[in-house]
Amino acid sequence: MLYFIGLGLGDAQDITVKGLEVVKRAKRVYLEAYTSILTVGKEGLEEFYGRDLILADRDMVEQQSDELFRDAETEDIAFLVVGDPFGATTHTDLVLRARQEGIEYKVIHNASIMNAIGCCGLQLYNFGETVSIVFWTDTWTPDSYYDKIASNRRNGLHTLCLLDIKVKEQSIENMMRGRKIYEPPRYMTVSQAASQLLQIVERKRSSDGQEKLAFTEDTVCVGVARVGSDTQQMAAGTLQQLASVDLGGPLHSLVIAGHMHPLELEMLRLVAIETSLFDRLLEEAEKR
Amino acid sequence: MLYFIGLGLGDAQDITVKGLEVVKRAKRVYLEAYTSILTVGKEGLEEFYGRDLILADRDMVEQQSDELFRDAETEDIAFLVVGDPFGATTHTDLVLRARQEGIEYKVIHNASIMNAIGCCGLQLYNFGETVSIVFWTDTWTPDSYYDKIASNRRNGLHTLCLLDIKVKEQSIENMMRGRKIYEPPRYMTVSQAASQLLQIVERKRSSDGQEKLAFTEDTVCVGVARVGSDTQQMAAGTLQQLASVDLGGPLHSLVIAGHMHPLELEMLRLVAIETSLFDRLLEEAEKR
Repeated sequence: MLYFIGLGLGDAQDITVKGLEVVKRAKRVYLEAYTSILTVGKEGLEEFYGRDLILADRDMVEQQSDELFRDAETEDIAFLVVGDPFGATTHTDLVLRARQEGIEYKVIHNASIMNAIGCCGLQLYNFGETVSIVFWTDTWTPDSYYDKIASNRRNGLHTLCLLDIKVKEQSIENMMRGRKIYEPPRYMTVSQAASQLLQIVERKRSSDGQEKLAFTEDTVCVGVARVGSDTQQMAAGTLQQLASVDLGGPLHSLVIAGHMHPLELEMLRLVAIETSLFDRLLEEAEKR
Repeated sequence: MLYFIGLGLGDAQDITVKGLEVVKRAKRVYLEAYTSILTVGKEGLEEFYGRDLILADRDMVEQQSDELFRDAETEDIAFLVVGDPFGATTHTDLVLRARQEGIEYKVIHNASIMNAIGCCGLQLYNFGETVSIVFWTDTWTPDSYYDKIASNRRNGLHTLCLLDIKVKEQSIENMMRGRKIYEPPRYMTVSQAASQLLQIVERKRSSDGQEKLAFTEDTVCVGVARVGSDTQQMAAGTLQQLASVDLGGPLHSLVIAGHMHPLELEMLRLVAIETSLFDRLLEEAEKR
């Protein structure tokens, strides 16, 4: 049996009791570590589980699944994924390849940012489509997620923005020369994401005009960092305010709020950069 | 400290190691049991934890929070919620009341249907706004969720439909006479939800015409039951097919698919009522 086991978001103890039992008895335990990270590293997990973990990098998951699947017809193999196992397309692909080879699989679910984001106080069923914000380069500054955020905002919905992670990336030069040298990992911060969104607002303002903007410098946003861990941080404020907030180490996510219920405003006020903003918004909401 | 602890979706062992530690040491442990259910009942949890649980019904959570919060300034009180703690507005309200009384709180996250639904093979970031489908009565047949599903479908997005739960509901007669007699619990099944949606299609067809329908009898849907438990069941097919599928005991949820990627179609094919439907859709997808 191939087990896909979600590790949740915080530290080693966020695994479920059911998941831990499989980890302890499995023949081999793989750790997928390129789509997300925990605040504890591989060593922290190994110490807590009392087992060695095999790091499954992108190469292994996408190209060497034979090794990963070895003996899975007759033995238990565990594949650990930060968050919930089905956050990333890659794992769906792995399921399909396993099934093609006649290997059965089970999923042990856990929290992912897709549901844990509810901790910020915005209601999960008021979220629209999730978007991914990627690092810009000197020559590549995509903003296609703007339209999705705009569509959510038109429907009064919040948007969860997943922020880019670059792990085990090769420079173009190293890739072309076939050198397996990797760049240091990079994790987009809330302030970086907010700054990129502010630049998009400027672009759209000059091309579309002020009226049609899906959001502006003053739109309420929430930045979250290390959700579920002891060092979790949250900050609610305007997009402009979030562009200069420091929420510490990775992982960060950003929410662009849509229409807010008074209960949601009161929750955001608990983590406000400036409470007066939410006092004013609450007053306006009560007048309606 | 007031701990909100998610129990996940399956059975007693789906609690996290971190959550279980708090349950073992907390002064009192409450179980919220009216917004969702686990496949094991209160007794199953008590046996696994080795602790007595206090059932927190709607009355207690909404009106008797003083009792729930007692000693929480100085002792650990645990409040257990099926799924992730922030699935329901009620718990947000509880956080606000705790904070007003100066009580600190922590959240221990877990899987909820909002992220675990990824197990069906449809990608989480292709979901739009979630809707709730309520039981119809002889005189009350609301269909406002149709517009939200339509909006999601226009944007190519999938819709997760949470199905109604009626627990500890009073009949109007008993309510008016002040008798605390409750109706037996009811949980909407996938086939009931699909039948209601088919009736809505008929209504819209006669009022709006065929062309503008957001979905029809032939739209691909996925029914899931008891996600995360050993008895989990899934079935993918047309809305018409799902209206007569039997997925066993609660809880059920239904997904109305939007635009599907070939990878998503291949995953749905694994749980197809009739594989030929997905073979045909895959063929069409490849032609595009």
